Amino acid sequence: MPSKEVNPDLLKERHTATFDPHEFAVFWAGGEERYKEKKSLEKMFLEDPALKDDLPISYLSHKELYEHSLRKACIIGEKIRKLRAEGEDGVDTYNALLGGSLGAAILKEGNPLTLHYVMFVPTIMGQGTMDQQVEWLSKAWDCEIIGTYAQTELGHGTFLRGLETRADYDARTQEFVINTPSLSAYKWWPGGLGHTANHAVVVAQLYTKGEFRGLAPFIVQLRHSDTHEPLPGIDIGDIGTKLGMKSVNNGYLGLKNVRVPLNNMLMKNQQVLPDGTYVAPKNSVLTYGTMMFVRCALIRDTAQSLAKASTIATRYSAVRRQSPIDPNQPEPQIMDHTTQQLKLFPQIAKSIVFKTTGDGIWNMYNVLSGEIEQGNLDRLPEMHALSCCLKAICSADAAAGVETCRLSCGGHGYMDCSNFPTIYGMTTAVCTYEGENTVMLLQTARYLVKVYGQALNGEKLVPTVAYINDALKERQFVNFDGSLESIVKAFQFVAANKIRIAYEQIEQRRRQGHSTEMAANLSGTFLTAAADLHGRAFLAESAYTELLAVSRQVSPALADVLKVVLELYLVDACLNRIGDFLRFIDLTDKDVTTLEIRLQNCLKQLRPNAVTLVDSFDLHDRVLDSVLGAYDGNVYERIFESTKKNPLNKEPVNEAFHKYLKPFMKAHL
Amino acid sequence: MPSKEVNPDLLKERHTATFDPHEFAVFWAGGEERYKEKKSLEKMFLEDPALKDDLPISYLSHKELYEHSLRKACIIGEKIRKLRAEGEDGVDTYNALLGGSLGAAILKEGNPLTLHYVMFVPTIMGQGTMDQQVEWLSKAWDCEIIGTYAQTELGHGTFLRGLETRADYDARTQEFVINTPSLSAYKWWPGGLGHTANHAVVVAQLYTKGEFRGLAPFIVQLRHSDTHEPLPGIDIGDIGTKLGMKSVNNGYLGLKNVRVPLNNMLMKNQQVLPDGTYVAPKNSVLTYGTMMFVRCALIRDTAQSLAKASTIATRYSAVRRQSPIDPNQPEPQIMDHTTQQLKLFPQIAKSIVFKTTGDGIWNMYNVLSGEIEQGNLDRLPEMHALSCCLKAICSADAAAGVETCRLSCGGHGYMDCSNFPTIYGMTTAVCTYEGENTVMLLQTARYLVKVYGQALNGEKLVPTVAYINDALKERQFVNFDGSLESIVKAFQFVAANKIRIAYEQIEQRRRQGHSTEMAANLSGTFLTAAADLHGRAFLAESAYTELLAVSRQVSPALADVLKVVLELYLVDACLNRIGDFLRFIDLTDKDVTTLEIRLQNCLKQLRPNAVTLVDSFDLHDRVLDSVLGAYDGNVYERIFESTKKNPLNKEPVNEAFHKYLKPFMKAHL
Repeated sequence: MPSKEVNPDLLKERHTATFDPHEFAVFWAGGEERYKEKKSLEKMFLEDPALKDDLPISYLSHKELYEHSLRKACIIGEKIRKLRAEGEDGVDTYNALLGGSLGAAILKEGNPLTLHYVMFVPTIMGQGTMDQQVEWLSKAWDCEIIGTYAQTELGHGTFLRGLETRADYDARTQEFVINTPSLSAYKWWPGGLGHTANHAVVVAQLYTKGEFRGLAPFIVQLRHSDTHEPLPGIDIGDIGTKLGMKSVNNGYLGLKNVRVPLNNMLMKNQQVLPDGTYVAPKNSVLTYGTMMFVRCALIRDTAQSLAKASTIATRYSAVRRQSPIDPNQPEPQIMDHTTQQLKLFPQIAKSIVFKTTGDGIWNMYNVLSGEIEQGNLDRLPEMHALSCCLKAICSADAAAGVETCRLSCGGHGYMDCSNFPTIYGMTTAVCTYEGENTVMLLQTARYLVKVYGQALNGEKLVPTVAYINDALKERQFVNFDGSLESIVKAFQFVAANKIRIAYEQIEQRRRQGHSTEMAANLSGTFLTAAADLHGRAFLAESAYTELLAVSRQVSPALADVLKVVLELYLVDACLNRIGDFLRFIDLTDKDVTTLEIRLQNCLKQLRPNAVTLVDSFDLHDRVLDSVLGAYDGNVYERIFESTKKNPLNKEPVNEAFHKYLKPFMKAHL
Repeated sequence: MPSKEVNPDLLKERHTATFDPHEFAVFWAGGEERYKEKKSLEKMFLEDPALKDDLPISYLSHKELYEHSLRKACIIGEKIRKLRAEGEDGVDTYNALLGGSLGAAILKEGNPLTLHYVMFVPTIMGQGTMDQQVEWLSKAWDCEIIGTYAQTELGHGTFLRGLETRADYDARTQEFVINTPSLSAYKWWPGGLGHTANHAVVVAQLYTKGEFRGLAPFIVQLRHSDTHEPLPGIDIGDIGTKLGMKSVNNGYLGLKNVRVPLNNMLMKNQQVLPDGTYVAPKNSVLTYGTMMFVRCALIRDTAQSLAKASTIATRYSAVRRQSPIDPNQPEPQIMDHTTQQLKLFPQIAKSIVFKTTGDGIWNMYNVLSGEIEQGNLDRLPEMHALSCCLKAICSADAAAGVETCRLSCGGHGYMDCSNFPTIYGMTTAVCTYEGENTVMLLQTARYLVKVYGQALNGEKLVPTVAYINDALKERQFVNFDGSLESIVKAFQFVAANKIRIAYEQIEQRRRQGHSTEMAANLSGTFLTAAADLHGRAFLAESAYTELLAVSRQVSPALADVLKVVLELYLVDACLNRIGDFLRFIDLTDKDVTTLEIRLQNCLKQLRPNAVTLVDSFDLHDRVLDSVLGAYDGNVYERIFESTKKNPLNKEPVNEAFHKYLKPFMKAHL
């Protein structure tokens, strides 16, 4: 190990902080109790030598990585059993162990058992009848069976009605016959499907009595309980290497006349009777709930990714010295270059805003869940629209932010031992899964255009889009005084105008004779732009509301820092969309320069607290897993130490020299 | 192999083209002769079974990949010998074989011998005396010795004066004693340094007679000529796994009292006499030449990366069907969604513009080279400033464009078999190497601010910045009529204003009492923004000039397509900086909407030619190496075929089941 002494530049940074990092860390963890739980889980998992790696996993082949990861996944599973036995298995524990914080410290490229816990079990709970839950849940909880969730197909993703896998009910034997009728119907992507799960919830088009009934979920056994051999009719395997999530064991699945009993269809929402009579679901919107739940959780994940990346880059930027500002002085900490500050500090601010917004949305979701349970679906479309665009914006911004942080570390960020490549791989994946980002924005936009029409008709809109009513009243935005509140209001005014333009584009094309659908397609880029601004306006308001609320609850010292974070976030967000601001609001060149200078001032104000702010994210060195970002800042020692683990360096001369290079070099002698 | 029949959707696309792809392909290759050379090289290299991979390299461990790559590198080296013997070893051949086109078809993660050819040999040619060239060059050309170029250190990159490695001349023995005095002085990054090269040009701080003399290059033997064992005092190895360039064998090098003869210092520009007398170089700017040469080449590389990524994504978007536009119709080709077009087509346009700009800059460089040889250094600062910002902009845009293409392919783009992860890894590296992008922009900006001051004093500026003179004359831009020419002029006007603001920011801070250097640092983000706009204004003008020039030389059918490409490029570029346009030019909301509708029209016009345009880049399937982007478009068959090669799928049950999973599942039974 490198020396335990902390790099003096980092020490210096920690002395300049104006607030107590512990106070922030407790807030960040969600309160004292959660903070203690976090520390106790870290102890339980990170001090277990069986969960430590001698060799960085980037040196393993794909096959070796799978075997290595399954071993650790089973150890984690065993500990989860223990926690459950002790009654300590809340949703936060699962999030930590299977997600990007503690989970990433153990299995940074993903866990092949995650989908068992977060999709297989919850689907049985959510879509199985009470009897089915009795039959399957205890086996699943005890991991006597391991499942996954198989929906996406090789040729079909977001558009669920396009799925080809079909289940035909055979009343004679009271079984469903499940088939993937073509190559493009093969199930593709489910985590753990390759070689890990022996069961899956398979989503298929249901046919009974020869009639099509819509989609339904079926529990299908894939592998023999003892031998793990694929069962007859099952073609199964691992889909191969990927940009990230390298140890998730994503799999493919072909089904050929696979028969499952009637009772294997999850029947809470819809039923098939033994004679094949189909009973349709009462309410098809109920399944929206799960998707929203997942998207809300993803927003918090993006905050976590940005927190990791900005911690690594900020600490490195305090230690690295490069390019003199004054030619007569030694090279400064690179964090003293304002260009570097502009790369780092907005990412720190975004982590904080995405986190508080994610928490806020999570609470909104919980309120809504209760309403839905009671049959009140009023706010569902609004919440759906909001969760779609926020998922898209936060994931895209987080992925871009991770890359900004990586690039800010120069060449060293390019090395796997920086951990940026893994963090990026995990973060950019969020742009695609659980609803591809462009599709998400279009779904939001469809809602926005609809409510815009209602507002034109004089209707009063629901809270998150009520700003459209205001914008219609005052066609000009006259009160831009640069206050934070006016930036938030301006964001809403700009969003309302982007929605107006999208609406007008569709209307114009309809007048030209296009169908509503074609008009919407031809206006696609106007629609995504409108949804983007709607989401950003919400983020701006949420940042303003949540951070000021937190500021009132914490010490004045911390409150001051949070206010700088808020101002930095809002001014940066505004300048990133300055084209839209100038387009709809009467701002001058000088107004823009003023905002730019203000941004610089925010950077300057944050500078002395930057390292302590990222320290306060309280990310364990194992979670960061970065030679550039460790708490002690011994960057060069840690880089060098990592090369010593490289299997190529175990021999001074690689055998390829004797086999290939020497004959080539001596060929002409 | 998948069936050889071409996917019917791609066939249809190829029928709708309005121009002859062969005509474009010949232009793209650089004329008939180059086109033929290209085809002949492809035949020579791609039909050699020894250069084909049975197993995709993403399944290899780091060590296996190195051994695999060195084997192929030696075969390529052998063929290069053959080509040299036949006199067919022009610079284009080296570019093809060692770069991102043909080279990538054989060694997609890089070649451990590349630096030998592109840095070691050229450095001896450029910096060695005639005697030294006689001594070293033939051995190097014949690969009797393999070299690399060791400049960057673990703790020191862009700022060369910060390098720590030192060479002390010992007149007694007429040797230099070379040392890396600390860990941060270790040489870091040189390709092939790890286990491949047995020599290196080592850049070190020169001391003679106890006095510091500046940087100098030394040829140092690293490994024994026969055994390849590291020589005494040499600590050497591979730096480890990385985001990309995974088989380049980047290495580290520590030197402890390593002695090399006097004659191993390359002495063309500066000399050390046997008694230690130092003769300084006549002109220190000469080394700028090489850096500019490399940066000009990089601009063309970025075009190549974008061409690859856009070919893959465009073909896939013609084959993939998803999300009905009209709910009563089947799912359309995803390329029919305008949101998808906005992802793809600007990347196609950028490939073309970066290519023609790169060619133009290359020609400028060659003219300049001639001038420098004759002692005329007038245009050197201008050309340096231009090459810096273009390297930064083109690499950043190309990396972002590759990711846009990847994300446009949804989940399938995330699989390594799409080849996007490798293309991204290779492309984003360009943002960092050969001058980190922010540092590049700051270098350009320093020049721009300087000439702005000259223009204020009434001086007439050199051609690439002459627009500043114009902008100072006419403080308002009144003639924005939307013509392509006026977009180019507007870009220049906007750039001039961004330079003005950067200049004013520095001046203001100087008036506040800051040193010029500190004032520049505090204005850093204004400076990079100015350099960005300068580069983009040049790209706009170059696109306009070069593409119209080409249009006059080709068939009317092709000329029409190129004009759409030009308009798309310019309108998109303008909208991407619309905030700056609105800030300095009096445009209304409606003007912006008009531009946005115009962009949509460009997309629509390009749609029928999109597949044929990327076909015309004429990238061999092996160069693309993508299951999504092959010429035949048999996407799903190729994806499926790739999973069959996955070593994990060679056994139905992985041994980890028996070792870990089964005991875990049965634990409680």
